[in-house]
Amino acid sequence: MSRWDVLVEVSPRAEIADPAGTTIERALAALGFAGVGEVRVGKAIRMEVSAADAAEARSVTEQMCDRLLANPVIEDTRIELCAVAQEPIAPEPAAPEPSR
Amino acid sequence: MSRWDVLVEVSPRAEIADPAGTTIERALAALGFAGVGEVRVGKAIRMEVSAADAAEARSVTEQMCDRLLANPVIEDTRIELCAVAQEPIAPEPAAPEPSR
Repeated sequence: MSRWDVLVEVSPRAEIADPAGTTIERALAALGFAGVGEVRVGKAIRMEVSAADAAEARSVTEQMCDRLLANPVIEDTRIELCAVAQEPIAPEPAAPEPSR
Repeated sequence: MSRWDVLVEVSPRAEIADPAGTTIERALAALGFAGVGEVRVGKAIRMEVSAADAAEARSVTEQMCDRLLANPVIEDTRIELCAVAQEPIAPEPAAPEPSR
């Protein structure tokens, strides 16, 4: 088992109104930032997951999305993951490190 | 000028309480997902930005974070970007890997 740093991006589907995104887009234009568009505001859920490999980490995360993290009727999800750097000696840290 | 797909992840700093993250972590454990930890919930702001190259797109996005998108006292930001698919004529080189 290794640890995976997982980011789940939960964003409103394209056909769902996103007033927060619209407001940010207008505010950026008012501040002078030209050429910014398609602003969408969602949730960024970052966590550490134990899994044997990347495929298993992704599969487990998809199950979490289905069961808790996202509402597929109105939300899209994207999953990104990368391996957490391991200490060379300890093969399996029993508890999550209190780092960060 | 080309278009860049930009993701700004705005998350609570490590020393700031994150009750949403704590609640999700407990709920995942209650649903039977073992080995999940360090859950933090932030905002995922996705947008398209016009810029000459990746460095300019990143620089403009950092200014947006400073001026509007994030509160650096309590929030961290991460920026990821990649080139939006262009018409095949544009000889723009591939975007550099998003720094982590």
